Amino acid sequence: MSWKDDLKSKEQEHIDEVLDLLRIPSVSTSPEHKPDMQRTAEWVAERMKRAGVPDVRIAQSAGHPSVLGRWHVSDDQPTILVYGHYDVQPAEPLELWESPPFEPRVDGDYIYARGSSDMKGNLLTVIQGVEASAKANGGKPPVNVSFIFEGEEEIGSPNLVQIIEENREMLAADAVISADGGQYSVDTPSMSIALKGLAGLQVNVTTANTDMHSGGYGAYMPNAVQVLVKLASTFHDADGKVMVEGFYDRVRELNESERAELALVPIDEAREKEEMGVSDFFGEPDFTTRERNWGRPTLDFNGIWGGFQGDGVKTVTPAQAHLKITCRLVADQDPNEIRDLVKAHAEKHVGSRGKIEVVFADGSARPYLADREHPVYKAVNDTLVDLYGKEPVVVRSGGTVPATGIFQDKLGLETITLGWGLPGSKAHAPNEWYTVSAHLQGREGYALLLEKLAK
Amino acid sequence: MSWKDDLKSKEQEHIDEVLDLLRIPSVSTSPEHKPDMQRTAEWVAERMKRAGVPDVRIAQSAGHPSVLGRWHVSDDQPTILVYGHYDVQPAEPLELWESPPFEPRVDGDYIYARGSSDMKGNLLTVIQGVEASAKANGGKPPVNVSFIFEGEEEIGSPNLVQIIEENREMLAADAVISADGGQYSVDTPSMSIALKGLAGLQVNVTTANTDMHSGGYGAYMPNAVQVLVKLASTFHDADGKVMVEGFYDRVRELNESERAELALVPIDEAREKEEMGVSDFFGEPDFTTRERNWGRPTLDFNGIWGGFQGDGVKTVTPAQAHLKITCRLVADQDPNEIRDLVKAHAEKHVGSRGKIEVVFADGSARPYLADREHPVYKAVNDTLVDLYGKEPVVVRSGGTVPATGIFQDKLGLETITLGWGLPGSKAHAPNEWYTVSAHLQGREGYALLLEKLAK
Repeated sequence: MSWKDDLKSKEQEHIDEVLDLLRIPSVSTSPEHKPDMQRTAEWVAERMKRAGVPDVRIAQSAGHPSVLGRWHVSDDQPTILVYGHYDVQPAEPLELWESPPFEPRVDGDYIYARGSSDMKGNLLTVIQGVEASAKANGGKPPVNVSFIFEGEEEIGSPNLVQIIEENREMLAADAVISADGGQYSVDTPSMSIALKGLAGLQVNVTTANTDMHSGGYGAYMPNAVQVLVKLASTFHDADGKVMVEGFYDRVRELNESERAELALVPIDEAREKEEMGVSDFFGEPDFTTRERNWGRPTLDFNGIWGGFQGDGVKTVTPAQAHLKITCRLVADQDPNEIRDLVKAHAEKHVGSRGKIEVVFADGSARPYLADREHPVYKAVNDTLVDLYGKEPVVVRSGGTVPATGIFQDKLGLETITLGWGLPGSKAHAPNEWYTVSAHLQGREGYALLLEKLAK
Repeated sequence: MSWKDDLKSKEQEHIDEVLDLLRIPSVSTSPEHKPDMQRTAEWVAERMKRAGVPDVRIAQSAGHPSVLGRWHVSDDQPTILVYGHYDVQPAEPLELWESPPFEPRVDGDYIYARGSSDMKGNLLTVIQGVEASAKANGGKPPVNVSFIFEGEEEIGSPNLVQIIEENREMLAADAVISADGGQYSVDTPSMSIALKGLAGLQVNVTTANTDMHSGGYGAYMPNAVQVLVKLASTFHDADGKVMVEGFYDRVRELNESERAELALVPIDEAREKEEMGVSDFFGEPDFTTRERNWGRPTLDFNGIWGGFQGDGVKTVTPAQAHLKITCRLVADQDPNEIRDLVKAHAEKHVGSRGKIEVVFADGSARPYLADREHPVYKAVNDTLVDLYGKEPVVVRSGGTVPATGIFQDKLGLETITLGWGLPGSKAHAPNEWYTVSAHLQGREGYALLLEKLAK
């Protein structure tokens, strides 16, 4: 039976597997979900074994484990290392979900669940695709395939370097295929050539050793929320340009041909505004929305809190307030340098009324730009042409996959992305979705890729 | 036995009663504590009956009940209506308490518990003082005493008007004595002549219909936290002056003699900074710290929140952010007008990227200034002179007792404050405290006051 017919015969079974995997709340950022992380790793390892992968291991680390696999078939064939992650973002705020985040809901072609688009579906397209390819090819895939599915992508892959260093032999390959990605639209494929880097920090402002009665003290004792909002308001100008000194110094400016390439894939602003309920976009002047999105660095506020948040009134002068920041970086910004610059800005602008503590977050990542001449890049490109019947558009991502920089640093490997998420799928947000049709096609994509890679 | 000897013989018993009352978590703002509110009202009513008050009632309302009492002894004597409240502020943030807020801890002269200073101790000084006075006076107090202990002071007394209107006869009096207050220091008494008014609101900013992945959208979709901090930073100038248009228009400016009076009771800035761990005070230029505290209105941020607040990193672009504001007002500002001005300011400064909703909080209060020629004012003054052996200093308060404005409006009554809290007692904050010695003296104060009032 061809892999195509085999995949066709297993559609329901494969979708059921996606739903099973989505039921495990593998939230890597929450200590309470630690047992779920181990459970998920075991689920994935078990599925890989069932697919025929002869060498499967759960590699423990100081954090959550990674699932590794190696299916060596011939020294004459190239080896790809497929990367993905089984962890997911926290589901909060829970009240905004229309159905429980870890009880996947299928509605027509849509599957609603945390981790559906990012990226438990993608992870299974790899295993199911490789399984079908091997079965149709006499019990083993046409090229050598290694696997690394980590459990800490959503917290910045803090232990990935350690795991790679401890498993170099198992992970040796000619290139990395990252399954953590998506396509341009339902009917247009895309090749992703750039990922943003990441630098995260938390700013803690303390103005006193205790919260105070606002009647007694609010008129003259400093208010931590007031000090923090004044500070926070200095990070961007009115347009949204980042005002941190030196922030843009190392940015590799987009050249004219890159700007033209980006102009081929404009953002449908009217549609996105409508879909997201947004009244007005923002950002650096002199750049298009797409350029801001894919080609310019940002400083994002991910969360703020301080003082009373309950129902009703509490007349308190808060003594502490907090701001979570992540910066998305482009080539050739350096995350460590950016963290230092943001810290210096915060310390300079907090003023005399607040004490400031800046805590660097784990999970920095260097920005990434692909080598478009790499043979695996070409094989992925050809796979997409076959699958969609047209040339992929060249895209970048505003997102971050720290693994990409790590593979380059530690294994000297180029990473090419091949995933099946769709725009608007609410990764990281309430009501995240994925589609049944994208999943079914994604399995074919991976089976096809192995054929294209074979000599 | 004189009331003095009687009180002397019951010191331990009376302090134990304070501790008992502090153990009931009567947090008026939390729906979950509703049963505790009823329990506290019953405890207080029971204690008043035991003190001999012949007519005690629990008056229900749309919110929490009030405990009312009337002890009419003679048509030839004046009647005072003693006001207080049995509800307390929420205890959050719990992790900053050195001992559980509703398990009172006695350490030397100090009693640590939520509601100790504000104002369960004060409430019991009234009942215990009136009890001793009546006992020494042949079984009834020397003047007529009515009581109203409400359960909603900390949420702005939303149902006090209704309760007063439904119980006019029972509450008829010549003046109100509010037990909700304090003294200038351990050895210097004070007469409080002014209370600030209050106007509260919550600003909700929405920038999209869902939180978004900051990598996918952070570079151009508006960020609710960013929009809110830009807005919040417009409420004050760098010094702390309120920038809301029209905010100061109705403020009755302090005249030279009032400024001189305030200068007699300066804030010990060095001590307060040390005690509160504060590096720098703030406020309107051209006013002393005491003038800002007692004579100038404020706009206070009580809380802010939006986006992710957990441990670790969540790369989200928040779609919602919230700010809680209360304004402290001075004569002759109007709380309704101030709320409208703040709302207009927020709507004007939110910009094109956020939708704004401004929700007015319950519990507005008009500012209050005392009539210093009132006979009850003089009787309270004389009581303090006897008790402390010196003239009280004239003080104002930065705090708010909505009841004061309501008694003036609804019963035509002047309110004079007589309470026993001490500066720095952390009312509304973690580790609130009260002292055993202040409590024992406070009981005497109330017994003495009844003598002074008697013709």
